[in-house]
Amino acid sequence: MDVDELVAGARRGEARAVARLISLVEDDSPKNDDALRQVSAALAPHTGRAHVVGITGSPGVGKSTSTSALVAALRAQDRRVGVLAVDPTSPFSGGALLGDRVRMQDHATDEGVYIRSMASRGHLGGLAGAAPQALRVLDAAGCDVILVETVGVGQSEVEIAGLVDTTVVLLAPGMGDGIQALKAGILEIGDLFVVNKADRDGANTTRREIRSVVAARESGWKPPILLTVATTGEGLDEVVAEIARHREYLEDGELERRRLARVRREIEALALGSLRRRMGDVTGDARLGALAADVLGGRSDPFAAADTLVEHL
Amino acid sequence: MDVDELVAGARRGEARAVARLISLVEDDSPKNDDALRQVSAALAPHTGRAHVVGITGSPGVGKSTSTSALVAALRAQDRRVGVLAVDPTSPFSGGALLGDRVRMQDHATDEGVYIRSMASRGHLGGLAGAAPQALRVLDAAGCDVILVETVGVGQSEVEIAGLVDTTVVLLAPGMGDGIQALKAGILEIGDLFVVNKADRDGANTTRREIRSVVAARESGWKPPILLTVATTGEGLDEVVAEIARHREYLEDGELERRRLARVRREIEALALGSLRRRMGDVTGDARLGALAADVLGGRSDPFAAADTLVEHL
Repeated sequence: MDVDELVAGARRGEARAVARLISLVEDDSPKNDDALRQVSAALAPHTGRAHVVGITGSPGVGKSTSTSALVAALRAQDRRVGVLAVDPTSPFSGGALLGDRVRMQDHATDEGVYIRSMASRGHLGGLAGAAPQALRVLDAAGCDVILVETVGVGQSEVEIAGLVDTTVVLLAPGMGDGIQALKAGILEIGDLFVVNKADRDGANTTRREIRSVVAARESGWKPPILLTVATTGEGLDEVVAEIARHREYLEDGELERRRLARVRREIEALALGSLRRRMGDVTGDARLGALAADVLGGRSDPFAAADTLVEHL
Repeated sequence: MDVDELVAGARRGEARAVARLISLVEDDSPKNDDALRQVSAALAPHTGRAHVVGITGSPGVGKSTSTSALVAALRAQDRRVGVLAVDPTSPFSGGALLGDRVRMQDHATDEGVYIRSMASRGHLGGLAGAAPQALRVLDAAGCDVILVETVGVGQSEVEIAGLVDTTVVLLAPGMGDGIQALKAGILEIGDLFVVNKADRDGANTTRREIRSVVAARESGWKPPILLTVATTGEGLDEVVAEIARHREYLEDGELERRRLARVRREIEALALGSLRRRMGDVTGDARLGALAADVLGGRSDPFAAADTLVEHL
């Protein structure tokens, strides 16, 4: 398997090549290290074009249906779309990682859509780990828009905002005490808010509640709050339009800032990971064991032992 | 302030010196790095004697009352006792970090007890971070037993088991569906189980439920399941006796293994922390920023950039 050939295939729009590349970047085992580096290097000149959009929200707000409806609306505009589902509650990510685009039934036969689910490795390790590389693959494959679907629980909402250009926060009417039930975090990261299931009672109340929170923001971008019924596609065109408008807003320097910060975090995480691995390689059991025994015996202390460990890297 | 003098003072049992040393090891800011290392080195020859006992359990089971009652039972045997409260729900850790031993009213005037609360830095960072150093201070100060009180939620139960010699898991009767409501984790780490508030209905049911889970263990130590009423002190002597019995059991090699594993983790964490800091120092904003810009511009990729970063450490 030649990496350059796979990248060339992906750039020509071959779904199989895209799937192979994503499988390659998902495997972070030491024996795959060379391949991972080759893929990363080969992709580098061909990335940075796609608009990466995060879709997040609590379970039950209709994330998967909304993602599917968004794909339809984007395809109606003839945009190439990638979907990366890292939502453990998503039906797209429920099955095995087939590595191809047969998950969303409506779009399964569409040549202009790549769908990929990704194991989230525990809670959200997937987002921090392989997801940035998978996004590069979809980017290089010519996707105009990449939708990253993830569940908005725990720390994941912060992570997703760090991974994408535009964050769409989905809500539904009558979720407990409305937005009171939401952690502040998820309201802070939204560039767009979408109240889905807007045919139900309370959609306007939920919209008002979000507005009261969002109005306090000082930044230049005022997040729109849209109503949708994802099952019928109602309101989705407006979501697509607002996503595009946010991208235009970002062009004025903010996109560059967000992406620089993102790449910095990625480089730092990779560097730290490689140091951690090297620590394991070089020290092995023997040296660390000896150092620990010295500390236990009172002949050394943990800081001095850590210094010794670092010196020998 | 001379570190050796403080350590000498702590070894003579001066509460003020103990408090100063713990404050020193709690401060992990770069400017305190030298002092931290000095303290760590000065303590090294004087540690390893104390029996470190973790007290964990869900909020509401009576951890603080039990800790206080345990202190009383240990003091009745004339043992020197240290208490480190890293439980964010504990009244001991609610106040400011005064760094002295005036928290537990019953023991405030007792020369043989040191009580220290510790900020848990977010969730449990405190346990992984400064807590091991604070334990060294209390150990060097001549404590026979150090009680570490922490709340048994999330990952903390795993962390506490990694920090102590003996883990006491507290429960109370009628907690929801009894032990069904507990995550398996907390039952796996217990060396002793204590059903507190045993004067309430359901104490024996809870004990039976725990026994059915614990009975499946294969290890040599069969965790005892004791009943207490911490508010009256009932059953606490037996807890103290069983804690001592567990320590004796550990002497047969297991204590050494647990402590070696603990020190290894501590050394690794310190080494990684120092590498992370060094990465920040050496690279500063400028180099990492330049590397990120190269990646964004397609002139490099994240893995190559990470390698460059690591090379320059």
